[in-house]
Amino acid sequence: MTNADVEVIGVGMHPFGRYTESSLKDLNRVACLNALIDAGIGVRDVQAVYASNAMGGMLQGQEMIRGQSVLRDIGIERVPITNVENACASGSTALRQAILAIRAGAADVVLVAGFEKMFVDDRSRTLDALESAGDLDVISGTGLQFTAVYGMRLRRLIAAGSLTLDDLATVSVKSHANGALNPYAQYRSVVTAEEVLASRPIADPLTLLMCSSICDGAAAIVVARPGVVAHREGRPTVRVRASQAASGFTSTGEEPGLTEICAASAYEEAGLGPDDVDVAEVHDAMAPAELIAYEHLGFCKPGDAGALLSSGETSIGGRIPVNPSGGLSSRGHAVGATGLAQVSELAWQLRGEAAQRQVDQPRIALAHNNGGWLEGESAASCVHVLERIESWN
Amino acid sequence: MTNADVEVIGVGMHPFGRYTESSLKDLNRVACLNALIDAGIGVRDVQAVYASNAMGGMLQGQEMIRGQSVLRDIGIERVPITNVENACASGSTALRQAILAIRAGAADVVLVAGFEKMFVDDRSRTLDALESAGDLDVISGTGLQFTAVYGMRLRRLIAAGSLTLDDLATVSVKSHANGALNPYAQYRSVVTAEEVLASRPIADPLTLLMCSSICDGAAAIVVARPGVVAHREGRPTVRVRASQAASGFTSTGEEPGLTEICAASAYEEAGLGPDDVDVAEVHDAMAPAELIAYEHLGFCKPGDAGALLSSGETSIGGRIPVNPSGGLSSRGHAVGATGLAQVSELAWQLRGEAAQRQVDQPRIALAHNNGGWLEGESAASCVHVLERIESWN
Repeated sequence: MTNADVEVIGVGMHPFGRYTESSLKDLNRVACLNALIDAGIGVRDVQAVYASNAMGGMLQGQEMIRGQSVLRDIGIERVPITNVENACASGSTALRQAILAIRAGAADVVLVAGFEKMFVDDRSRTLDALESAGDLDVISGTGLQFTAVYGMRLRRLIAAGSLTLDDLATVSVKSHANGALNPYAQYRSVVTAEEVLASRPIADPLTLLMCSSICDGAAAIVVARPGVVAHREGRPTVRVRASQAASGFTSTGEEPGLTEICAASAYEEAGLGPDDVDVAEVHDAMAPAELIAYEHLGFCKPGDAGALLSSGETSIGGRIPVNPSGGLSSRGHAVGATGLAQVSELAWQLRGEAAQRQVDQPRIALAHNNGGWLEGESAASCVHVLERIESWN
Repeated sequence: MTNADVEVIGVGMHPFGRYTESSLKDLNRVACLNALIDAGIGVRDVQAVYASNAMGGMLQGQEMIRGQSVLRDIGIERVPITNVENACASGSTALRQAILAIRAGAADVVLVAGFEKMFVDDRSRTLDALESAGDLDVISGTGLQFTAVYGMRLRRLIAAGSLTLDDLATVSVKSHANGALNPYAQYRSVVTAEEVLASRPIADPLTLLMCSSICDGAAAIVVARPGVVAHREGRPTVRVRASQAASGFTSTGEEPGLTEICAASAYEEAGLGPDDVDVAEVHDAMAPAELIAYEHLGFCKPGDAGALLSSGETSIGGRIPVNPSGGLSSRGHAVGATGLAQVSELAWQLRGEAAQRQVDQPRIALAHNNGGWLEGESAASCVHVLERIESWN
């Protein structure tokens, strides 16, 4: 069994945004049917499903059989449906289980469905549910929220001279510029650095335009063992080169972080390094987190994230475009769907189907999805590496 | 890759019952450490974790990273932790993911942790959370509860002459008799058929003493690739012969049910049939469901469940003892832990460590765990087949 034994044969999304009239079933239906159509298969071809949702129990009251309830809606029954949850990394965690199921020989064609509906009657319910991405026994003793944790981390980096406030504004401008080109994005307006810095403070130094927000949406992926589904003529092949996960710990800030641990495993599995990556989607729940990801994923040396950003190399058209979709902060962060939206974007990029936001002939793509937190460190991290097999003409 | 590539090397439980002073962490800690001690390994030997919990989001407010929060409590960090949910079949679903992870080559030693705390401040919150094991869009239109669905199914079987009220009482008496021998059981008192029938009506013909109830508890399993962990001297080897899952559909009552579909796959994978099974733990959320399971698992012909029960062959000491632990209805049904409690019991039985409830030299054991419901059919079913490798002396 090699690591080149699984292909991404279909991807699909429901646009991210605010869809108060749509149910979880409505959102999921669009994403799943888009992915199945993209793969050129029907619901009866699906041999197993992994469902990803993070907040349906607390926000919609639909716990326990979230996948069964939305998948039956499109006629998928009888096959094994497994409900997977890992906070903001739920989607990539579910994808990894699908890949493992194929590698284990348990199925040849697997659908991964991620769906989330965060806009509900009362915003405070959504904020309460988000708190459960941390260990409640600890959070209830500190009052800390995600944004505060990010804010403190960034203040430390600014104090150390590693980042500037301008870097934080610039990366947000880049995210919004990319999101403006993405029809699936929640925010599709360009912003200026001045607008970013002048927007409402959230947790100093973070401002409103740096942060992802409440979001509805869905994304779906079909993975398959090569050769099982008829290849669509003219369609470039997207293979999984690595699928790795790691979970959180109480960080002292001295040891390698969770993303570094997970990325090292992924590079080892893929047999390549950060210099080989041509395009990446990284976990920027707050736009400046992209800068931290540059370093943790090895795209630059520690302390050089600001310089890498300023060089333009991570913009569309640069050497290693990051978050061409707009990322979590602009495409949006419908929690259970996010990891699959990243992979959808990368599949489109590798196939050359990303329209206005297409990067230049990428061959290797990396998706980085983190979730939850445990006192200064993420609770879960997943890194996937994808490869386009055919050469670009 | 054969299907004999995974062993159950450790099992452990926290007793099921009412533990109002214990947190989810407290319950999980006992079960996991018992399983690790049983396997003869330490927390640093665990390479991946699958966590099973069904109601923590709605009852404890701990959604999203349930596994990370309780596993960190025993010092398990950095390795991949995946949170799995499938209503009452959550535990067996998580076990199946662990088995697939080993078969896929992603890990050699995997811990599966199931934990549930259903006793909370207000019983109505627990009942509300249980409703989410069905599709809320449907339930909210019918007002049906689990017990009512079981009740209607049993009434139909009684009307058809397949079962009698005496059968329902007798199977409950058997469950309680077994549970009385199990130190991990929630209910440890023998009852008479008269007491069962005279107890409070729940959903005709079901009475209180036929039903599982609100329960706290935890169970854990360690699975491993053979040869990776030093074999404990004198300890019989328990191998996984089959691990199958299927998910629900809207039943017309005409086609094979979910358990039948899943059991057929499991027998095929194991290369054996129902006559080869020496001991079984089946999903009796209501004790009489055990009778339905006899038929769906092939232990007897359709219509013969009452006769099989009356023959004594499914009692401890019979040809094919079923639910020697007391089953869900007497050992208890701490939802996320149930599937793993079943496998713990079967491992003890296969090793000859079940003390007063030990069945006679079993070689093949079957665990049947169902979860949720979709209009007349379960939403999830898992069947595992285990084998003792060494002959009995």
